[in-house]
Order: sequence, then C-alpha cells, then structure tokens
Amino acid sequence: MPVGTQGTVKGLTIDQVASTGADMILGNTYHLRLRPGHETVRQLGGLHAMSGWDGPILTDSGGFQVFSLGALNSVTEQAATFRSHIDGEKVVLTPEHSIEIQEALGSDVAMVLDHVIALPASKPEVEDALARSIRWAARCREASTLDRQALFAIVQGGLDPELRRQCATELASMDFEGYAVGGLSVGETPEEMYAAAAVTTPHLPADKPRYLMGVGTPRDLLENIARGIDLFDCVMPTRNGRNGLAFTDKGPIKLRNAVHREDTQPLMEDCPCLACRHSRGYLRHLFIAKEMLGPTLLSHHNLTYYGRIMAEAREAIQQDRFSQFAAEKLAGWGHRPVPLA
Amino acid sequence: MPVGTQGTVKGLTIDQVASTGADMILGNTYHLRLRPGHETVRQLGGLHAMSGWDGPILTDSGGFQVFSLGALNSVTEQAATFRSHIDGEKVVLTPEHSIEIQEALGSDVAMVLDHVIALPASKPEVEDALARSIRWAARCREASTLDRQALFAIVQGGLDPELRRQCATELASMDFEGYAVGGLSVGETPEEMYAAAAVTTPHLPADKPRYLMGVGTPRDLLENIARGIDLFDCVMPTRNGRNGLAFTDKGPIKLRNAVHREDTQPLMEDCPCLACRHSRGYLRHLFIAKEMLGPTLLSHHNLTYYGRIMAEAREAIQQDRFSQFAAEKLAGWGHRPVPLA
Ligand SMILES: [Zn+2]
Ligand SMILES: [Zn+2]
Repeated sequence: MPVGTQGTVKGLTIDQVASTGADMILGNTYHLRLRPGHETVRQLGGLHAMSGWDGPILTDSGGFQVFSLGALNSVTEQAATFRSHIDGEKVVLTPEHSIEIQEALGSDVAMVLDHVIALPASKPEVEDALARSIRWAARCREASTLDRQALFAIVQGGLDPELRRQCATELASMDFEGYAVGGLSVGETPEEMYAAAAVTTPHLPADKPRYLMGVGTPRDLLENIARGIDLFDCVMPTRNGRNGLAFTDKGPIKLRNAVHREDTQPLMEDCPCLACRHSRGYLRHLFIAKEMLGPTLLSHHNLTYYGRIMAEAREAIQQDRFSQFAAEKLAGWGHRPVPLA
Repeated sequence: MPVGTQGTVKGLTIDQVASTGADMILGNTYHLRLRPGHETVRQLGGLHAMSGWDGPILTDSGGFQVFSLGALNSVTEQAATFRSHIDGEKVVLTPEHSIEIQEALGSDVAMVLDHVIALPASKPEVEDALARSIRWAARCREASTLDRQALFAIVQGGLDPELRRQCATELASMDFEGYAVGGLSVGETPEEMYAAAAVTTPHLPADKPRYLMGVGTPRDLLENIARGIDLFDCVMPTRNGRNGLAFTDKGPIKLRNAVHREDTQPLMEDCPCLACRHSRGYLRHLFIAKEMLGPTLLSHHNLTYYGRIMAEAREAIQQDRFSQFAAEKLAGWGHRPVPLA
C-alpha cells in the first residue's frame, strides 16, 4: 500500500497512484485528525470523495504517530494524551475516539488503537503494553458502528516469541476481520524483524489478511512474504523517491551521482512507469535543479517497482515457485535468503 | 505557452502539460546553459528527447535573464558578460553563443539575443539598446545553421511609439520567421503595455507570428490579442498555481483562505482539469499541509484555464465576435476593455 499520510500520496495525482498498480492506499488518522480535522474530512465527503481514490483505503489508528511524532504526555488505561506536533493542541486519544475519527474518514479498513513502545524494552514493559493493546482492541470493536468498515487487530509482543504467540492467539480468538503485525521496524535488525513475523503468523487465521505495518525495503517484502505476510505499507518508495533514490533489480540508484549526468539509459529497461520514459541524465538534472518533477517521477517509479514485486510474488506463489523467485530477486539486490528458522 | 524554464514545466509531467491543451512550450536558454549545460542537453538528445515533449519548443535567447538574474558585469558591442546566479561562473554571452546554445537545445524556434533595459529609461539609453539589439539580431541570423529551427526577432523601443515603429519596421525588412514584442512587463502599467503593443504590431508582417514575451494576466492576454498579438509566454499560471492562487471566470481564488475549508465545490464547474475533480476544501487542505499535489493541481488548472482563454479567443476571432467575447470575459474579472487608441 502506498502511504497517503495527509490524504494524498506525496507528489502524485490519484490517477498516477492507480497507474502504479496499487490496489489500496493508507491514510494516517493522527495527521488527518490534526489537519484538516476529521470533521472537515467528513464534511468533504470522507477520504474517498476528497482524494478521488475509489479503491479501498486503510487508516491506521494514530497510535504509532502519537508515540513517535506527538509530544506524548501520558498513557493511562483510559487514553493516550499528547500535544499536536503542528500547533501544540492537547488531544486525548482513546480507542473510542480513534474509531470515531476513522469512521469520519470513511476508510474501508480501520485499525485498532495499540500501545506502541520503543525497542529494546524490558519484558514487563512489553507485557504491559501488550495487555493494554488487547484491552484497547476489544474497546475498539465495541466502539465500531460502521458495518462496511472492517477492523484489523494488531499483534504486539516486541521480539519475544512467547509474547507474540500469546498476543496473536488471544486476538485470533476475538475474530477480527484481519490482523496486523505491529511494533516492528522500530530499530531492530532485519533478521530480528523476520524472526518476529515468523513466530507470529502461524498463530493467525490463514483465511484472513496478515499485514506487516511500516515495512519495508524490497528485501523486507520478500522475506516477510516467505513468512506468511500478505500486506505492507511503507513510506520508503515515496520518501526515497523524493530524495533521488530509485529501486531497481540491480539495487538502488542514487540519481544525484555525477556518473548519471549524460546517461541516456532509463532507470530500468522494461519498467512501464512515468520516469522510465526519460533518461537517467534528465532525472539527475531534475534533482540537481530541485525541480518538483524529479520527486514525482521517482515516486512513481518506486511505487511501480514495489507494485510489480508484489504482483510477481503473487504469481510465483500461485505457480509454486516463490522460493526460487525470491532467491533470484534477492541476489540482484546483493542478498541471500535468510533461512526460515 | 507554458514556461518550462529548466526543461520541465514546474510540477507537471509532460502528459499533464499536453492535457492542458498547450501546443508549444518554452525553455530558458540562460538556465539550461548553466544547468545541466547545453552540451549535456545535446548529449541527452536535445530538449525534446530529454523532456519527452513532441510538440514545438521555443527557446528564449538568455538576454532577459542575463539582464535580470545574472550579476551583469558588462555589455559591449561584442557581448554581455555575466556571472552565473548558481555558482558565480563567468559567462560571455554573444549573439553567436546564444544561437549555438539554442541549436544544442534543439528548439523549433530560437530567439535573437537582445539588449534588455529596465524601464523607465532615458531616450538615449533606449535608442542605444535598440540599435544594438538590431545589430545583434543580424548577427544571430548570420550565426544560425539549422534549417529546421526558425528564428524570431525581438522589437525593442521601450514605451516610445516612434522607436517601436522604427525598430519594428527595420526588423520586418530583415525577414525573420516571426516577431516578438520585447522589453515589456518590466514595471510599466497595463495600459502602457497595451499601448506599446498597439503601436508595434501594425508594422510587423501580418502573415507571421507575433509574440508578446513574458505576458501576462488573463486580462493582458485578451487586451493584447485585441492589438494583434498571437502568442504569449508567462510564468503566471504556474507560479501563481504553486502559491495557491487559481484563475477563474469570476477572478482569482486564493485557496488558503479559511472560507474554502469545508467547501465541496470545485474551482470551476465546467473545467476539465485535474484540480476541478476535487473540492476547494481538499485543495485548500493540500496547500495548508504543504503537499506537493496542491501546486501540481493548481498549475494544471491555471494552464488549462489559460489554454481555454486562447482557444476561445481563436474561435471568437474566426466567428467575428472577439470584442463581445473579450468584453464578457473582462467583465467577469472586474475589468472593462481598454479602448483601442
Ligand atoms: Zn520506472
Ligand atoms: Zn480546473
């Protein structure tokens, strides 16, 4: 899923997002609650009408941003209280308020509010956040009023296999419409992340979507698909694109490098994106001259590239050749597959 | 003509530029000479191949930017010498070098190098710049080697009707492929600009394009079309678009204003652009949240709006109802037609 933090996938029109092959986009509850405000979004017809995106939209719960961006004041059993990073407004985010916001945004999939903590953390801290996240998940489901909006729970538990198992098992018994693996991509190594996904997914229903939040590199996609993940969201394709970095089958290309100055080749020969109709030399020029078109074109390329990895992975799974496919792609990026535990 | 200063119309892909109805775009010789460098553009196949634009491209001569952006060191009969606004590089711009650069860029229409001076200026100063501009125009034609590249001369003469007439008559006798009215939009009032265009165009060949450089507002377009101008270039639609100002039949709309916060209307009901598929409330949100999509959408709207004014003006001329058309449009913008001398 491309990330549309503030009701727009940065730098792209909604048609351009669709032409990357994206099926679903993500909106950020925290950001939209603060600006323009969820009641304004409701007034403008919801996220779909506002942005013009007619495919599915998933909204996060705001939890991750409250614990990372906001000046967090306190977490109690009742709520997380924080100050806006924009204007210092004091906001009390309860599980119920998170659902109320997500219903105003009108997303197709809402996420439960969870208590995110930074890693590494002590086992009691992890256990405490985990237990609270489960109670908050139940409150979110209680608060939900929209039949057409699915609700996904979030498995916490840090890097502890036993806590991950417990949390997954408990949430699975509560019968949500989908499950996310949360609390990763917060400073652990790739191998630790893959291990945490691997110990979680076996305890989640096989017939429901499994979503790894905030991940990751092209390598992370394939390693986690191998461990049973279906869905990802990440700012990497767009953020790196805005900074002049393009993902390719031979690894990343830094467009600002002088070596690309007079290079008439496209980023990739067979890529159908908007950037690959131009030469690397032109793309480099756009970045050096600080032209908006550079970030737009590279965001389009990277999202197209991520979309193709996912499409090719689905095809490889259907044809029962995923391991071989993944090993080849990983080799192109300079990696070997991490053995499945 | 949308302005593509650095080989890109700011904020738009080349398909989006085409979808505004633009037939021709402008590239800036001064900017492209300094970055990426005209030899790099040549190496990348020229401006058309680089940008992907397959319609006509006009390049200016660099004169206007040398006299406004560069730290001008000196103007002699031989050349204008300046320092780059980017890295201080000392560049000697002769008429011959301007043509050499424009040939490397591969534009369809090149402009002669002219000596631009700020208004108001004394009559001797204006006369001196004018005489030099005519001599430089002749040198440009002598230097031109590309049959497929047309060369347009530039009429100077400040606000002096007699100097404008002299300059136009002299250049007309030299039989260029088109003629520009230069040295305007540099601080004079709209009425002074219209008067200067009015005294110039009667002395230019009726069967060749007449181009008013660096102009202007929607009002300026219609008032100057009434005075015989065929072609314009201006950064106003894109620059204003990037700043959150949209041109409409009822005058400009400033999207940042709080009044648009929950406005579900589009900018204009019948506009086919990418912005007008969204609400004003969404467009406002994009500007307040500093999202790139805001500038992109408003640039697309404004260029579409300018393109439609030009298309409607052509149609009205063919149907012999231009005065009525112009008076109605001007009334919507809060203006009355300025009487034709
Ligand atoms: Zn591409
Ligand atoms: Zn429009």
